[in-house]
Amino acid sequence: MIDSNVAVISGGVGAARLLRGFHRQVEQLTAIVNVGDDMVLHGLCISPDIDTIIYTLADAVSTERGWGLEGETWQAMGMLGRYGGQDWFSLGDKDLGTHLFRTQRLHEGATLTAITGELSAAWDLDLDILPVSDDPIHTMVTIQGPDTGTEISFQDYFVARQHSVPVTGIRFDGVGTAIETSNVVAALEQADRIVIAPSNPLVSIDPVLAVGGIRQRLAIRRDDVIGVSPIIGGEALKGPAARLMTEFGMECSAVGVASHYSDICGTMVIDTVDSALAPEIEALGMRCIVTDTIMSEPGVLESLCQTLLA
Amino acid sequence: MIDSNVAVISGGVGAARLLRGFHRQVEQLTAIVNVGDDMVLHGLCISPDIDTIIYTLADAVSTERGWGLEGETWQAMGMLGRYGGQDWFSLGDKDLGTHLFRTQRLHEGATLTAITGELSAAWDLDLDILPVSDDPIHTMVTIQGPDTGTEISFQDYFVARQHSVPVTGIRFDGVGTAIETSNVVAALEQADRIVIAPSNPLVSIDPVLAVGGIRQRLAIRRDDVIGVSPIIGGEALKGPAARLMTEFGMECSAVGVASHYSDICGTMVIDTVDSALAPEIEALGMRCIVTDTIMSEPGVLESLCQTLLA
Repeated sequence: MIDSNVAVISGGVGAARLLRGFHRQVEQLTAIVNVGDDMVLHGLCISPDIDTIIYTLADAVSTERGWGLEGETWQAMGMLGRYGGQDWFSLGDKDLGTHLFRTQRLHEGATLTAITGELSAAWDLDLDILPVSDDPIHTMVTIQGPDTGTEISFQDYFVARQHSVPVTGIRFDGVGTAIETSNVVAALEQADRIVIAPSNPLVSIDPVLAVGGIRQRLAIRRDDVIGVSPIIGGEALKGPAARLMTEFGMECSAVGVASHYSDICGTMVIDTVDSALAPEIEALGMRCIVTDTIMSEPGVLESLCQTLLA
Repeated sequence: MIDSNVAVISGGVGAARLLRGFHRQVEQLTAIVNVGDDMVLHGLCISPDIDTIIYTLADAVSTERGWGLEGETWQAMGMLGRYGGQDWFSLGDKDLGTHLFRTQRLHEGATLTAITGELSAAWDLDLDILPVSDDPIHTMVTIQGPDTGTEISFQDYFVARQHSVPVTGIRFDGVGTAIETSNVVAALEQADRIVIAPSNPLVSIDPVLAVGGIRQRLAIRRDDVIGVSPIIGGEALKGPAARLMTEFGMECSAVGVASHYSDICGTMVIDTVDSALAPEIEALGMRCIVTDTIMSEPGVLESLCQTLLA
């Protein structure tokens, strides 16, 4: 156990993997999690990034899918299919238990922060998983194509349309009035090291940074903030990060990511394949660390976490 | 196929069994169903009586339990149990698909009547299952005991407390402004025969009768209304009907049931074991038919349905 207090600005899958490297290895670990993907579907309140983190850290996540639970069944979705219901967002039977609990507790007046703590405790996790805000935030995406200029929900873009359509706008609905929780404020003040996970900068990290004073709070801690580039060799391991960066006129590289975070992040970790980019990143006034970052490869997660703590 | 148009005033299990006898046997069959048991749980809109009727008529109901689906699994409830969530109302995984669909469609603005038609069509049923009203009605029960005078929901009484506590009051919340649907009005006008199912008079049939002009509409059709007593030999086959009738000062017998319906029902069907009660029922100004009424016994359902159509 390393005597360190680490806070991780988190999206879903990529952040969950990184958190797994820190879990039970550092004294105090906090995930500050995106809630822009949250939605109400079939009346149920669903928090995809929070659940991916919980299931991953509980070693309960499906290794095949990377989301949802191992040993999952799909009886409810089968029935929904019989009725011609909306079944584009797959809800496993076990997973539904999580959404039933969250929805009931929210209706009872509990905060998402409190409920996430209850879920986390039920899985015997030893970290604080904190939604960045208890206020609702909904990431909305304006897409081009047959429905030019149509604004749709993030999950509609990401899941139903499999992020295969051009995007011309991203908006975080509700972020104007949303504030970060006091737990998040305390975590950012008390952390020795603040890590920006290799999540999608535009749709996973930005909706965290856009809440209340988060960006300013990180700027104050800039020397202790260390980002991990999700772009390796000009591509994202998974998901639409590279495509979105290009669509929004950003350089699709570790330099583009570093530039996006340069006001809040003193150090950038980039993959060995991108080592030639280090001077460009240092030219942005950031330190640059070159190391292996593909966490699915043997031994890389452990060494990456050691690097981030060093 | 008998050229008859039959409407059945229905609760859940008992009504579903009777409807199964009529289904695909008469030209036009309509169930007018209690919605007082409906509830929102974990954010999901649940209509227990409607679902029991659909599942029973689809031959999909669990024969062991008499409610819910055959081949059901309980993964969601298992997960809810892990979280210490409210698991007193068992929601099977398949069954959840029905509630997800209903909730989503209600949130989209569809009426309960339309949604019930969609569910019914998906199960290839050949009858009209009509909620008595599209307006919400909630049967509330005032119980005695440790929580003297506490008013609780019907499902809390019926399922969570297994109808084992004394009841001092029954109230149909919302019934003052609820109106019967135009489909229900048409069904009651067009039916050759209107059957009052052997459901609980106080908590299954009364919340139907209490809606808008239903009682008056039945009174007009009194000569064509035929009730089946759920009380046989002074006892109910299932559930708290006998206990509730006693608690509310009614005679706990087929006579008590007949008396309860005497203004709206011209004919009462009672079980052979109660044949001695026929004169008392006739003294109420009703015809009385004595026959076998225990539908779970071989051949009884078929003969009972023939009697009701005669």
